[in-house]
Parts: sequence; structure tokens; C-alpha cells
Amino acid sequence: MNTAEELDKLLTELKPRLLAYIDEADPKSSNYNPQSLGTFHEPKFLKQEFIQDDNLDEPCSETKLFEIIDKVLKYSVNTWNPGFLDKLYASNNPIGVISDILLSMLNTNSHVYTVSPVLSVLENYIGKKYASLFYENETCGGLTFSGGSWSNITSLQLARSLKYPDTKTKGNAGYKFAIYSSKHSHYSVEKAAILLGLGAENVFKVNVDEDGVMDVQELEAIIEKTKADGYTPLYVNATAGTTVFGSYDPFVEISKIAKKHNIHFHIDGSWGGNVIFSEKYKNRLNGCQYADSITVNPHKMLGIPNTCSFLLLPDVSNFQTAMSLKAPYLFHGRESGDDENYDLADGTMGCGRRSDAFKFYLGWLYYGKEGFAKRVDHAYKIMEYFVDKIKSNDDFKVVGPQSPQCLQVCFYYHPPSVSTRDNTEITRFISRKLHKLGKYLVDFSPNPVDDSQGEFFRVVFNSPTLTNEIIDDLINSIIEVGKEL
Amino acid sequence: MNTAEELDKLLTELKPRLLAYIDEADPKSSNYNPQSLGTFHEPKFLKQEFIQDDNLDEPCSETKLFEIIDKVLKYSVNTWNPGFLDKLYASNNPIGVISDILLSMLNTNSHVYTVSPVLSVLENYIGKKYASLFYENETCGGLTFSGGSWSNITSLQLARSLKYPDTKTKGNAGYKFAIYSSKHSHYSVEKAAILLGLGAENVFKVNVDEDGVMDVQELEAIIEKTKADGYTPLYVNATAGTTVFGSYDPFVEISKIAKKHNIHFHIDGSWGGNVIFSEKYKNRLNGCQYADSITVNPHKMLGIPNTCSFLLLPDVSNFQTAMSLKAPYLFHGRESGDDENYDLADGTMGCGRRSDAFKFYLGWLYYGKEGFAKRVDHAYKIMEYFVDKIKSNDDFKVVGPQSPQCLQVCFYYHPPSVSTRDNTEITRFISRKLHKLGKYLVDFSPNPVDDSQGEFFRVVFNSPTLTNEIIDDLINSIIEVGKEL
Repeated sequence: MNTAEELDKLLTELKPRLLAYIDEADPKSSNYNPQSLGTFHEPKFLKQEFIQDDNLDEPCSETKLFEIIDKVLKYSVNTWNPGFLDKLYASNNPIGVISDILLSMLNTNSHVYTVSPVLSVLENYIGKKYASLFYENETCGGLTFSGGSWSNITSLQLARSLKYPDTKTKGNAGYKFAIYSSKHSHYSVEKAAILLGLGAENVFKVNVDEDGVMDVQELEAIIEKTKADGYTPLYVNATAGTTVFGSYDPFVEISKIAKKHNIHFHIDGSWGGNVIFSEKYKNRLNGCQYADSITVNPHKMLGIPNTCSFLLLPDVSNFQTAMSLKAPYLFHGRESGDDENYDLADGTMGCGRRSDAFKFYLGWLYYGKEGFAKRVDHAYKIMEYFVDKIKSNDDFKVVGPQSPQCLQVCFYYHPPSVSTRDNTEITRFISRKLHKLGKYLVDFSPNPVDDSQGEFFRVVFNSPTLTNEIIDDLINSIIEVGKEL
Repeated sequence: MNTAEELDKLLTELKPRLLAYIDEADPKSSNYNPQSLGTFHEPKFLKQEFIQDDNLDEPCSETKLFEIIDKVLKYSVNTWNPGFLDKLYASNNPIGVISDILLSMLNTNSHVYTVSPVLSVLENYIGKKYASLFYENETCGGLTFSGGSWSNITSLQLARSLKYPDTKTKGNAGYKFAIYSSKHSHYSVEKAAILLGLGAENVFKVNVDEDGVMDVQELEAIIEKTKADGYTPLYVNATAGTTVFGSYDPFVEISKIAKKHNIHFHIDGSWGGNVIFSEKYKNRLNGCQYADSITVNPHKMLGIPNTCSFLLLPDVSNFQTAMSLKAPYLFHGRESGDDENYDLADGTMGCGRRSDAFKFYLGWLYYGKEGFAKRVDHAYKIMEYFVDKIKSNDDFKVVGPQSPQCLQVCFYYHPPSVSTRDNTEITRFISRKLHKLGKYLVDFSPNPVDDSQGEFFRVVFNSPTLTNEIIDDLINSIIEVGKEL
């Protein structure tokens, strides 16, 4: 059997399984089964199901292989089910699967042009197209990193390297850098500070208002204070769509403060940056053009396969200026004379890289800018429908912004009949029960404003297959399950 | 049209293209075309072929989509062709494609157990299985990172965090850390030092012998010297399979020195670590069990799809000890009481993560340990065949180790008839010409021992589809093309 025949055989076995898997999770299909999301199992159970060491010594039979593949599908969360409302991403989609298959077929590495000519050209192209939505600079552009955290980490390295280039050779020695970010920002800012040897203590957390928005007056006061204390202010991170409340920081004001104090101004728009595609909601990003770097993840709001995260810059050449080591055995400078760099790893802190940008390119081509805009607008419509519904029911209470700025809604469900139970108990009971029913997977979170109030639901309305009917059913399901308390 | 129908339609269009693409690159197929590797095109040409901005506004037609997909395949390097000898990885394989499709279907995120139960259990499982090949400790294990560089970077963070935990809060302040690595090690060690705020100057590069192997006496002398100069020795990186010569450092001796001076001992086995599967060649890794961390990339020598890189530890709990922030909105500790961590991102410096470990699990299941062993042994046999052949031809000259320790061979081709040309000119001319013929893609490198000798070929014999006949043809092709000089 030659290689194509072998692949053909495996694909022929696999395809009906995949189509059935998608189909039972699709509200538009006659095979739709709302409970196809899958239910919770303990690690202990899954270990018993999967782990048999002698499986790994000799090649397995095709029968055995597909037995295990069937179990992988059966015991995983079926994210194609619209009831997957747990995280800031939703299901894949057909063109996303196609793009992953193509990348798998090419199986190359977009680190140098020689081995990935098309992928490198397309990454530069789509990075620039994407950046142009945020920036007016002719020179703007972007590269992909393996997740929003790595984009944020890279932006901090960029800030340090551009503003204090001697740190590349000498390290942090001689500087006492300070970083600023809101209390509601993602933990990757703190992790970046730790990784870069700046220390978690030197990340100054700025207070937020009741909607989770950074207090810019406090930001400025803290900067002044740290300067007086001998710090070198390096980097301020603002968030477009915070993790818990989905809030947007005031970018125009922050940019002015950053400029005044010579601080790198980064926007972490991993989650909320893609409202840029919507005419109706893009104003949430006002001032983003002043940012020195922006993280945006198409794998979240736009449904590009996981992971796909961009770091966008007003001047794309800064990637190389900040990161390059010029390793002569790898980067041969063959393309010198051209105005762009195509040996993309030279602009990163890594080397080998999967071309996540290609997935975004193919999705954009397939749906068009128009398609992404529709997706974002539909998600907002669903979110707003849900908010309206629960606001008119006294047993629900929205937490944080009463008109959420992004696609998640934070709320308590606490009917008078269970008044003796605390919020955490109610939230966890309902969340787990919904999961056990295999219909809805919803997340919960401690209350970042007042911990004593207990944990609330944080439900994310991102899937394009969501309908008002499903939202009604979700609300009814919460109420139904709540009766068991 | 519902979602499954849409995917079915796209797959039906795609499949014959993929099978034909693989088939023409397969020496075992009657459709084999040696020139299917693809030839070199300038970025300017590819930009003209692909970039039309109006493509991205509205959704494209299916015809347009497949027109572009056809061009992506046509103008990419077909890594399934055995003539792809340029980098330290080779083609994908049928089970690799299947594993990528499954990950794409699941489209989840192996950061927390709730959304990726099976993938998290399997990552822990296969990480431990893999680590057990290197370590005897019951507690050993591993996690995947998005490439060897990120595994190496993570190991440095691990070293700093475990040995000097106050750096997590305070940064590097108060320490003047020193790092040691050989002159032939990968640039990611230097990038890691820059990223972690230690500074490139504080990476002390140890000399190598003529085979590219670290001089351990010099290592110890440098450590003593840096200590006397007030440095805190932090981390020594040894390499299993260096990038250019494929050399293995002497791990037993290095481990003793590291232990004596309380230094974290890391092995970068991104390329050469997987000889562990071969009974014949695993002794190159003698002493690896003393390493505090080991990087190994199954996407290189084992043909798992790009990217798949593991960081292995003698005690897997060190991932969390070193990295965790305990973010309460994400990590709910649901699985507490179990002996293992299943919220995998908690043990990394990132958050969202594609489950690269699953590709390795499925490949291991399909081929068995036995299959990986055969693959490694076959590759060595081919490499040794090539070395024997060129050694008996006076126009070729092997550079570096005369009996290469890993799968790449470095050599000059310089027949007397072109005595007036320098090596760099000859090497680049032949390399580019072979690429233009669409038959062989081979890399070249500056001579790291004596730059004045000029650039040489570095050819990597990693593909399982290589045969002695192809090697003979490669040698003949070099000689043929050389006649044009």
C-alpha cells in the first residue's frame, strides 16, 4: 500500500464519524441532539478507558485505532454544540477544518521563506490587512504567536528591547522597571513580567470602576508614585474585552498618559479586539490606533481554529529590530533587496512555527470581511437578547456592567426559594448539573469586586449557531435545574 | 445546507487534490514524479499570484476558493517528496494528518480539564511514557510547548523559579545570573536569556572540539571564573544533536559539574533526543537521566506533525511549582484530591494551548515504539550510506564529525575543475540549481569552525521514504549540476 492509499483508507473510515459528530450538534440538522455536548467524567474514569501500556509497544490494528478514535470523540466536549458557552472561543467550522488539513498536508514550518514561501507571503499579507483595520500607518503589520499569552509576552519583550536596547545584551541589570495593568486584566501580563525577569511585584495593578474599566486617574497617580520611587516606567497594558466582565479600557486617555511618560502602550484585545469588524461595535476600540502593539485572537470571536493569535504593530519592522539575532546558519538573507522580511522567525523569540496566519487568511477569504462582521453582530444580538430576558426575571441578577460591552454575561441565579444557599453553592450546582445533562457547558467565576458575594455564572455567547430558541431553553434549563436545590 | 453537508462538500472537493499531491511525491507510487518538490519563486511573484485585496471583502465562491487552494499547493514546497532534505523535519504521514483533523474537529483548548478532558489525560499519560524513556523516576512527566525554542525558554524559567523562587516576585534584581552553553548550541538559548532579562552577554559560550562537542574542562573553568567575578551560575544547556553538526555533548561529565556548582542541567534534545527509541543509537544519550529538564521534538525525527515539542522533567509537579499563579477565574481546582494536575496551562507560562501531545499519542499508538525505532534506524542507515559514498569520492569532503552522530551530513563539493571558485559560490550555486529543478531542497551553512573556508552543504536524511537509489541520484545530481559551474 502506498502512502496515498493508506491516507485514503484512513480518511474513508474517519469521514462518516466526523460528519455524524458535527451533525448531531447542529440545530439546523434533522439529526440534532441537544445532549450531544457530552457530560463530565472524572480523570480516573478516563484513565481507565484509555490507558493500557501494552498498546504502545507494537503498531496497533486499524480496528483498535478507530475504537480509540471513537472514544476520543465520545468522551470529549463537542464544541460544535451551541450549548458550549464556557470559554471565549466556540466551535470550528468547515473552512476551518479545511485550513487545518491543508496545514497538516504542507507540514512545513513558517520560520524561513525557503520552506514556506506561500505561507510566509500570506502571513505578511494578512497580518498587514488585519493591522490596517486598527492602524492608519502604511508600515503596519502583524505576526502570529501560539496564543494570546505569547503575543502579550512578545509585546513586553518588544517594549523593553525597543526602548532600552541595552537590555538585550545586559539584561535588566541597572533598571527597576514598572509595568501597569488593571486589576481585571488577564494573568498573562503578570506571567510576562515574571518570565521577563521583571517580577510580579513590579506589576502595578490599577483599580477598576464597577464596570471593570481601568481608572485612568489612578493609573497616572501610580506612574508618578513609581517614578518618585526610582522605577523606570516601561509598559502599560490596557484590555479590550476583559476576561471576566468583557470590559474595554479607555484607550484614548491611556495613550495620552503613556506618551507623556514615554511608556509602551499595549492593548490586549485577545478577546474583544475583533469587534473591529463590526460597524456597530467597533467604537469600543476608539484610540486603538495610538497603541504601540495590539494582541488579537481570531480563534476567539471569529471562530478560526485554535490557536490563532496575532500581535499587530504600527511598524512591522519593529519585530526584527526588537527580536533578531541574525543566526547565519538559518537566515541566509536570500530575499534581501525586497522591502519586507520573509524569514518570519527572525522577528520572534522562537524558531519553528505553525502557520496559524494561514487559517485566518483562508477563513477571511471564505467568509469575507462581511461574513466576520455578520458573525460579530449576530453574537452581540444573542447576548443582548439574553441580558434583556434575565433582567426581566427577579431571580436573576446581572453582575458587573449592566449593558455588557462584550459577548459574555456575568450573573447570579438566586430564587427566593433557595434563600438559605449561598451563591457559590447554587452556581456550582447548576453549572455541573447542566454539564451532566450534556446540554450546556457554562463557566463560573469568583466575584472580582466583592468576593463575599460568592461565585457567579459567566456565560459566553459566541457561537454562530446560537438562536433565541436556544437562549430561551438555556434560561428554562437553569430554572428547572435550580428547582432541585 | 447544514454544517455537516457544507464540510462534506468541501472535503469531497479537497480529497482528490490531497491524494494526488501525496501520490506524485511518493517513490512507491506509479505516479511518482521526482520533480514534484516544487521550485523556488521570488516573493514578488507569489505576491502577484495571491494578493488581490477585493478578494477579502465579500465571501468567495467555491470555485475561487479551490483555485487559490490549488495555487497554495502548487507553489509550496511538497515536503512529502523525499528530496526535501533541507531542515530537521520531514513530511507528515497518514496518521499525522488524521491526528490534525481530529484536533481541528475537537477545536478545544487543553488549558483546563473541563473543556479538554480526554486530551488532558492523554497529554499527562504520553508525557509520562515519553519521560520514562529518559528518566527512571516514578514522578517523571512532560508537557508540550509550541516548538523547541519555547520548551528551552520554559526550562530556563523553570530553573530560575525553582532555584531562586524570589525571582518570581522580585525579578532578577539582586542576582547576576550566568548561563553556559556550547558555541554550537541553538540560538534559542541566547534568545531565552534575552527574553528572561538575563542578557545575551551573560550567556557564556563554551568552546567545542573539531566534532562540535562541548569542551567540559573549559566549561568548568568558565564556571569558576564567573563565580569569582560575582556571578550566580544558574543553568547549563547541553545539546543532543546540534543544529549544524548533529553532535552530542558529554552528558555524564556535564551533569557532575552542574551538580557540584548547584546549576540546573538542561539538555536540548529537540533534534537528537529521539534516538532514545533506537536500541542501536540510544547510547548517544548516556547520562540524560541526570538532566533537570530535557527538550525533545517528536515533530523532527519522528515525523509527528509540526509543531510537537515536549519538555520532560524528572518530577512533573515542578511545572506547577515553577509556573503557577493560581488564577481563580480559570483554574477551579475541580480535580483536587487526584494525584495529578489536569489543568495543564497552570504548569506553563501561557494559557490557551493546542494539544500537540495528542498527535504524538496517536502516532505512537499507530506505529508503536517498534515503529519509531525502525524509523530512526532506517534514517541512520541512509545517512551512513551517504557518508560512505561521498567519502570514496575525492571531489567531496565531509566537514565536522567524520562519522556523524546524528542524521545530517555537512560536506563540501569541490571538484578540481572548478578550483578557481570558492566553496560558498559552489555550494550556493548547486543548492539553488537543485531547488530550481524541483528535485532536491538542501540547506547550506557557514563553516562554524573556520569561516574562511566558506559555506558547506548540510543535508538531513530524515525522511522514511528515502532509499539508496534516491541517495545515488542525489549524489549524481550534485555532480551533474556541478558541471555547469
